[in-house]
Amino acid sequence: MREKELIKTIKSVLNSEYIGDDCAYLSDLGITYSQDSLVEDVHFSLKFTDAYMLGYKTAMVNISDICASGAKPLYMTVSLSLPCNIGKEFVKSFYEGVKSACGDVKVVGGDITGSGKIYISASIIGSAKGRRISSRSNAKAGYKVIVSGEHGSSAKGLELLLSGKTELNKFTKAHLMPQARVDFSEMIAKLAREDYAMTDSSDGLADACMQIAKASGVTISIDTSKIPHDASVDIQTVLYGGEDYELVAVVPEGLLKNISGYTIIGEVIRGESGLMIDNVFFSDIDDKIFNHFKEENER
Amino acid sequence: MREKELIKTIKSVLNSEYIGDDCAYLSDLGITYSQDSLVEDVHFSLKFTDAYMLGYKTAMVNISDICASGAKPLYMTVSLSLPCNIGKEFVKSFYEGVKSACGDVKVVGGDITGSGKIYISASIIGSAKGRRISSRSNAKAGYKVIVSGEHGSSAKGLELLLSGKTELNKFTKAHLMPQARVDFSEMIAKLAREDYAMTDSSDGLADACMQIAKASGVTISIDTSKIPHDASVDIQTVLYGGEDYELVAVVPEGLLKNISGYTIIGEVIRGESGLMIDNVFFSDIDDKIFNHFKEENER
Repeated sequence: MREKELIKTIKSVLNSEYIGDDCAYLSDLGITYSQDSLVEDVHFSLKFTDAYMLGYKTAMVNISDICASGAKPLYMTVSLSLPCNIGKEFVKSFYEGVKSACGDVKVVGGDITGSGKIYISASIIGSAKGRRISSRSNAKAGYKVIVSGEHGSSAKGLELLLSGKTELNKFTKAHLMPQARVDFSEMIAKLAREDYAMTDSSDGLADACMQIAKASGVTISIDTSKIPHDASVDIQTVLYGGEDYELVAVVPEGLLKNISGYTIIGEVIRGESGLMIDNVFFSDIDDKIFNHFKEENER
Repeated sequence: MREKELIKTIKSVLNSEYIGDDCAYLSDLGITYSQDSLVEDVHFSLKFTDAYMLGYKTAMVNISDICASGAKPLYMTVSLSLPCNIGKEFVKSFYEGVKSACGDVKVVGGDITGSGKIYISASIIGSAKGRRISSRSNAKAGYKVIVSGEHGSSAKGLELLLSGKTELNKFTKAHLMPQARVDFSEMIAKLAREDYAMTDSSDGLADACMQIAKASGVTISIDTSKIPHDASVDIQTVLYGGEDYELVAVVPEGLLKNISGYTIIGEVIRGESGLMIDNVFFSDIDDKIFNHFKEENER
């Protein structure tokens, strides 16, 4: 995980209190704010996706960051860099995908430039108005760990694509056109009366839980038999496969009676920072997380 | 200018009223918002710059966009993608450059990923509080055209670098470490009592004037003898060379008695959309704008 090492370096240079959640919460402006990039042959390959799906995923990945904060996604900017042999049709189709995923979210800026490979970076702003904003450091002993949907489908989709099975089905679609959990986020953020922790499962469910556990200084205990997943997906993929973009929330038990559509997969217990999976404690899981494109490029 | 063609395509897909100024003005949130990218061998070359200067320029280019809107630059996110053979020292030095240029502007997010070449994209938010926000479409007949400083120095700096003269001097510094006009922007935006147009000269002075003329549906007349520039820079470079990041403002005459540090270079006259340079009218100047890296890559 070279990425995590470099983030440490960046944090030490910038000495910023904002870096650590999916979004920065700018309370003076009443917004949350994030930026996320997708790089050709690192995060995607044109062997498996097309311009429309790429635009769609770009928007969804960014919308998911705002959802993780609990804010209402409002405005996005999109920067697209692409080789000059890629034509107008690609650009048109890409932005049609962005627009389709955006719904009410407005694209208000960005730029377009030349480059060797395709590089996409989008930033997004959400409104905190009427919402309680999450932080990964808010988990407390006794809180319940809930998730918004199935895990492991995206990673299985990627496996299928890599093995040459490129037809669109439940799994490949989960990977190529993920859905941000806008409604789930809104429900939690509007109904929460106390602080809570939330993140999306972009780097996998286990990583999401571990990030919250470490930021909060608690042990998060999860029961793998409770995690919603397709019956055909093995438990390692359910735990460590990335890019499902489901929400993982760690909330006071009292909230549960007011919300719906969630599955309880565990709880917070007092103890060392780390993750307990079926009663086995891990202080680190970085070596278990997988993301094929990333790994190939980062090694 | 393939870029402008593609922007037309994007605008038609998104049908967004926000795209057209250096920043989007989100009046419901009281902010302006922008994103700008720098791509290796398109916008910069490591032959001429280093990590620190690159970070510095990344921040300044984005701060300049907020300055063009008249808002107060507040928060930035920075995404950096780089080949895995580039080490921690580069990343550290890059962010030190970002931080140095940022001053009070806080870096609150972004990401770091692998890529083939270096790709940088930053987004930025400014506060509109207590400021009148500019729009390129606000120029009116009788308004004066003013600039914040010298033009053509950055383009001359790039010429020097390309011809092998890589020592840091006034010109190469203007190109590698430009200065956003934060104070000039603040003065105009705080003192303006009527709408005004403003943009930065990132694509050159003539282009800045032309963008405002077209967005406002007026003729902007400029007198090249009035444009501040170093005596050694020829007038074509002064007009068409990019990346000076000076501000070009088109303001009511009444504002001028309250402000300082500007040079009047022309005025707005009623007429066809376009630019009159020393009494010669141009309805288009796209073929005259130059930016060496861009041209090489976009042809």
